[in-house]
Formats: sequence, structure tokens, C-alpha cells
Amino acid sequence: MQAQLIALDWGTSSLRAYKLGPEGVVLEQRSQAWGIMHLPCEPRVINGIDCTDGFELAFDSACGDWLDAQPGLPVIACGMVGSAQGWSEAAYRATPVDVASLGQALHPVRSLRGVEVHIVPGVIEQAGLPNVMRGEETQVLGVLQGLGAQVLIGLPGSHSKWVEVVEGRITHFDTFMTGELFAILSKHSILGRTQQPSEQFQTEAFDRGVHVALSKDGRRGVLSTLFSARTLGLTAELSPNQQPDYLSGLLIGHELAGLPDNAKTQPIILVGAAPLCARYQRALTLCGFAHVSLAQEATERGLWQLAVAAGLIQPVTEA
Amino acid sequence: MQAQLIALDWGTSSLRAYKLGPEGVVLEQRSQAWGIMHLPCEPRVINGIDCTDGFELAFDSACGDWLDAQPGLPVIACGMVGSAQGWSEAAYRATPVDVASLGQALHPVRSLRGVEVHIVPGVIEQAGLPNVMRGEETQVLGVLQGLGAQVLIGLPGSHSKWVEVVEGRITHFDTFMTGELFAILSKHSILGRTQQPSEQFQTEAFDRGVHVALSKDGRRGVLSTLFSARTLGLTAELSPNQQPDYLSGLLIGHELAGLPDNAKTQPIILVGAAPLCARYQRALTLCGFAHVSLAQEATERGLWQLAVAAGLIQPVTEA
Repeated sequence: MQAQLIALDWGTSSLRAYKLGPEGVVLEQRSQAWGIMHLPCEPRVINGIDCTDGFELAFDSACGDWLDAQPGLPVIACGMVGSAQGWSEAAYRATPVDVASLGQALHPVRSLRGVEVHIVPGVIEQAGLPNVMRGEETQVLGVLQGLGAQVLIGLPGSHSKWVEVVEGRITHFDTFMTGELFAILSKHSILGRTQQPSEQFQTEAFDRGVHVALSKDGRRGVLSTLFSARTLGLTAELSPNQQPDYLSGLLIGHELAGLPDNAKTQPIILVGAAPLCARYQRALTLCGFAHVSLAQEATERGLWQLAVAAGLIQPVTEA
Repeated sequence: MQAQLIALDWGTSSLRAYKLGPEGVVLEQRSQAWGIMHLPCEPRVINGIDCTDGFELAFDSACGDWLDAQPGLPVIACGMVGSAQGWSEAAYRATPVDVASLGQALHPVRSLRGVEVHIVPGVIEQAGLPNVMRGEETQVLGVLQGLGAQVLIGLPGSHSKWVEVVEGRITHFDTFMTGELFAILSKHSILGRTQQPSEQFQTEAFDRGVHVALSKDGRRGVLSTLFSARTLGLTAELSPNQQPDYLSGLLIGHELAGLPDNAKTQPIILVGAAPLCARYQRALTLCGFAHVSLAQEATERGLWQLAVAAGLIQPVTEA
């Protein structure tokens, strides 16, 4: 089957490449560790030129053979590749944004091969405290088809995003540093010293953490409840291998407690890695959120739709 | 002037030794880096015995000459020296506690010199989420003289304590991991990457952080507002050297937002290092706390009073 588009999900720690066919169906996909902070550095000749640029090297390795086979394929990319530390900076677009407005604002960078890579700009919200995202806007736009007028989309991760979508437009979003905080607390704080990893998910400990975040004690805030991950160990109420999942539940519970009040009755879509989404789904249920579902292939779909909106491809279906 | 007591403030990262005279006046004091996690390890002969024990070595170096000069001096110690990782574990006492009840519960450990070191037990609160402290109870008891019936005592630090005292008894306390979180966020998270140290206190940035914690945005919790330390940099609203004090104000603001509502009209006493107390005093004022003052020499006074309550010394005044 002929490919129609090369779609790149290029973040801080990884590069995922998709070869998409008619209607955006995934023909082939690859994942490399070449995030923008971990680029290859072995020099190589590309298009007759000695090349040492990490972005060029990664791009060529990820999909050079696809372009050799079909030289005219358009290329689109989202994520931190468009940041100031990326290949070329794609200026943020301010909320509200939709597929059409982002698709018309792609930022082209010409590769050594002569192929243009069209980078999706990140999104900034400037009302109140500023907030930014790069990559998540594409995932959000990728899951909107067939959804109602008002949806809340959660993208758990190092920096979880919660994105409000009204009539197909991203109108507001928040960022919670939950995943990164979990990682550095476990690795660098006093809480990590008494933790032991567990092979199995410690359901009871996780649920307890969520409940503490929702409790009267939780209203003092996470700076206060955090210490309970230590003291419940001291009082033998949590074993060392329960402490990581307790901390996970506690932090996720505090994150969910920070969502807007009306979110409880709204449709919620989770986008992200399956094990993490399962944790969030469990915590959302414990917190009383009624309508939660999971989305698949958000990034590939979003990149496809943006490429169509940008006119990079004609979405002709094969009969 | 004859000494009456050797008082040790022995924590995780340092050992402070005080030689106290009549009425607890400080005759001499020393500070060493020999916290219980950083003990000396060079073997030495103590009292005719080859010694490799870090606690014995540190104790002998810190005040062996004082004991040589006055062999009968009683010794009292507070802090993490009484923890499970300390010299000898002094079991926690449950709230409520006062000077009399703690003074009667000192935990003696006999040193190689033959001198008994009387360790002040830490305090545990078991209602709701458990909470513990070691060392702060002594500081709290040291500042109570002459205070009213109900006081809130703040001890800012890596793990800030807020201690409610009613009629001279510690009835309730909370722990906020503010200081440790500030340290690991600055050193290990994405926020640290754009921070630069400032030689001067960045007042405006600090105040802004406090205000954000108190704002509508702040009600989503610190997991959410944290990211603004990055985004306000991206939007050029905070320079790199303003970011550390912004983060400091933000975290302290969230801590203070977690204090009980009635604290605003209560007398508040701050105990701790002067520069840190100055930050808290500024933030408390911004948050509308009305009656804030600072206490001095809390640890030495507390140790003195506990030694008196334990009968280790007769508080004879020199005429």
C-alpha cells in the first residue's frame, strides 16, 4: 500500500516515526531513543554532505529509507522538536486553537535531504498564569472526532495536562508536575530512602493515597500530606514496597482534586501510556468522576488531521 | 563561672554543643558538621579503650574537654540522635506533651567515658495521619515562657513544623516538606534548568510567588502552580535569577495556605535560622497573619528546662 504521510512524534526522550497510508492508517511505525536531549552524534554523509547535526542524523535514520522509496512523501512532526532547544523553534499559538488554525500555522524546516519537515506549533495560554504544551495539542486534536460539545482531556505524564475542549477548540488547559515530582521524590528525597519497589501494583496503598488527598488532611495541601508517606512507614501502616504506590495515589489524588468542580459530570478522555492511564482511571473513579474513557492512537491521528488541514495531503481513500 | 549542664542539639547534618551556666546562660558553644549521617570515623582511644564508634568519637570531640574539666556535668541531647538511625532510639511520646512529661521520659545512653547522655524523646501525633518530630519539641518548649494560653509555633526548615500549643502543652502539629521540595526541585527538576542564583533577595519575585499560591490559580494546588516557575520564564516575566525566589515564595505561600483558618488571629512565633524566618515573616504578613514574632535560643532554653524537669540539675541562681 502506498504511503501518504510520514508523521513524527518527537519529544524530549524519544522519537516515534509513523508511515501512514490512506485515511491515516498506520502502515509501519518505529520508536527510537533519539529524543531532542539524546540525539545521535556519529557523523555520516547525508545527500552527499558530511553531517554532524543530531537532528538531521536522527531524522535520516528514522525515515530515510521511507523517503528513498517514496521521495515525495510529506513529513509532519510534533513535540519538543519545535521548542527553543529543538530542531527549529515553532512559535506558540495562543488558545483558543483548533485543527484548522494549527494546521495553517505549521513551521517548515528544510532538511539536508531537501525534504521539508512541517513542525506543529505548541500552544500557549496567556490568561492568568501562563501555560504551555508541545505535542499534547496534537494528541488532543486527534481524539476529538465524534465527541460532544464539551470534553475534558487528561494526558497523564511527567507534566500532566488537562485540556478543556469546547466545540472542537482547545479553550483552556492546566499542567500538573505530578510525574516528575513522583520521580524526584522517589529518587532524591527522604521518602525514597524507605521505599522498596514492588513487582505488583499495590492497590490498597494506591487507593489509600488517593483517599488521603481527598480527606480533611488533604486540604492542607500536598506539601503537608507528603510526609505521611514516611510516617505511615514509621508506624508500620505501610510496608516499604507499598510506599511507592501510596505516594503515586497521593500525588494523583491531589492532581485530581485540583480539577475544576464541573469536571465530575463532564465526559473525560484519557490519552497516554496504558499503565499510567489505568492508574488515573482508577483514581478518577475513586474521586467520583463519572464518565471516563480511554483514547488510542491519538498522536498519529492528530498528525494526520493536521496534515490534511495544512493541505500536505489529499485524503483520497482507496476504494 | 561553673557550668551546670552540657546541652547537645544533634541532628541529621550537624552537632551543636552548649556549655550552660546558672539559669541556663550560654557560657560556650560549638558547632560541628557531625550530624548523625556525617559522623567522624578516625579511630581514637577514649577512656583507655580503642574506639571506632562515630557517636562516641563525635561526643568526645565535641565536649570531652568540658567533661575533663568538670567530670560530674550532666549531659542532655535532642534531635535525630534519638532516632532509629541515631545513637540509641528514644521511643516517641504521644501528644499532648509538656516540659514535665517529656522531662520525665529522657532516654539515657551510657558513653565510653562513663557519662550518661540523656536523650529527649521525639513526639508523635497519632490522630488522623501520623506525624513525628525530633528536636522541634525541645525548641517549642524552649519558647513558651510568658506566652498566652494558645500559640502557634512555626519552625521553618527542610521539613517545616507548625505546632499548636495550648496551656503549655503541644496538642497538635503538621509537617510540610517545603524546604526539601525546594532543594530537590531546584537541583533535579526541569525548573532548576532555567534558574540562576541571585546574590540579592529578589523581593518582587518572592512576593509574586506568595500571591500566586493565594490566588484562584493557587487553589488548584502546588502540583499545578509549580509549572508557572517555568512558564513565567518562557514568557520573560521572570528572569533566570528571579526564578529561585519565585519558587521559594510559591512553596512557602502554599504551606501557609495549609495552616488552620483560625491561625490568622493567633499569636505566631517563628523559630529557626534568621534568613529563613525572615522569608516566612514576610510571607505571613502578605498572607494576612497579624501577630508574628521571632524567638531566639529556643534549643538551649528547651534543653535547660527539660534538664531541670528531669532533675538533672538544681536551678540554683548565683546571687
